[in-house]
Amino acid sequence: MSKGDNVVVLDFWASPFCARVKIALEEKGVPHVDNEEDLFGKKSELLLKSNPIHQKVPVFLHNDKPVLESGIIVSYIDQVWSSNPLLPADAYDLAQARFLADFIDKKVFDTGRSIWASNGEEREVGTRDFIEVLKHLEEALGEKDYFGGDVFGYVDIIAIPHSAWFLAYEKLGNFKVEDHSPKISAWIKRSLQRESVKKVLPDPEKVYQFVLHFRKISGLE
Amino acid sequence: MSKGDNVVVLDFWASPFCARVKIALEEKGVPHVDNEEDLFGKKSELLLKSNPIHQKVPVFLHNDKPVLESGIIVSYIDQVWSSNPLLPADAYDLAQARFLADFIDKKVFDTGRSIWASNGEEREVGTRDFIEVLKHLEEALGEKDYFGGDVFGYVDIIAIPHSAWFLAYEKLGNFKVEDHSPKISAWIKRSLQRESVKKVLPDPEKVYQFVLHFRKISGLE
Repeated sequence: MSKGDNVVVLDFWASPFCARVKIALEEKGVPHVDNEEDLFGKKSELLLKSNPIHQKVPVFLHNDKPVLESGIIVSYIDQVWSSNPLLPADAYDLAQARFLADFIDKKVFDTGRSIWASNGEEREVGTRDFIEVLKHLEEALGEKDYFGGDVFGYVDIIAIPHSAWFLAYEKLGNFKVEDHSPKISAWIKRSLQRESVKKVLPDPEKVYQFVLHFRKISGLE
Repeated sequence: MSKGDNVVVLDFWASPFCARVKIALEEKGVPHVDNEEDLFGKKSELLLKSNPIHQKVPVFLHNDKPVLESGIIVSYIDQVWSSNPLLPADAYDLAQARFLADFIDKKVFDTGRSIWASNGEEREVGTRDFIEVLKHLEEALGEKDYFGGDVFGYVDIIAIPHSAWFLAYEKLGNFKVEDHSPKISAWIKRSLQRESVKKVLPDPEKVYQFVLHFRKISGLE
């Protein structure tokens, strides 16, 4: 990389997937321009051109070349701006980090969604499923400060943005994350003290209001 | 790694995900023991202990330490047995390979399943969706011999095992892969000439019979 690098994130403020990319860039000290997309209106030409298959944010543009999928983008950033590595160097540690990131990708947002984008029994099932996911994460974290061990690393970056949605899940699912996963709660508080996380994550109350708005326009309220 | 390496794959003969791991091991010349799991009967204690969350094959055991998820396993194998690299070294090429592997993971087996595990309109939709996926892959392959370019690499290993199921998709979906994606057809023939692929992939006719058996016991026929 050089000083002339042009780094752009096609972004949506509430997206935990976009937040991963922005936190990784903050951790690496890479200046970037975040272009907010209007996901409920017309998507930008640049988004459609850069991600024709999924048409989703985040898109990461490095000197105009697109990199897609948040976990892949964070890995790319870690390889290109290689000081303060986020991914473990050891093959086995790396495979374990990737497995946990994959578990988070498959489970956290979707079980969360089944709480906030539903009602009645479906929401009850969603809440139970989400609490199960929390328990797996609690076990994976164990007694460590971070998923990366002593240092905030790849899995932490993958996981922490979801926490901005937890208030919405708690209010709509009528439970407390802390009651089911006290270590995860402590890890969230610890991570929120980091400059990168503090700077990037949206206010959970604002996310909750966004979810309520979404429920209203979707006919769920 | 050392000569004393103990390499075990918890396997299922028809699984394209297990085949990825076995092809990677063949490409690297790593001796391995494949333990066939009875997925319709009782899963082994070793499987349940090694993959408590998903309880799925493949599980890769390297000196008794489990590595999970086929794409992660292939990356692990490539890092540990590092001669003849499968993954691109360049960050941008790597991100593109990972994106395509992710697309294949999300789309190929599931759209295929919506052909063979359905009937009527659902199957018609599944067939159309699968042909769309083929067209994306045809475009991604372009004029190259392999997804990896001149050499058979990571994306080829991720993709080729699915081809053993294509006969079943064709017969049940009433279409020909070749009619929609001639370059993919040629790539399959080319890849099947490789020793690793030839040795690992099951006979498509046997997979088709397996699918028919599955349809019968599931009440679909």
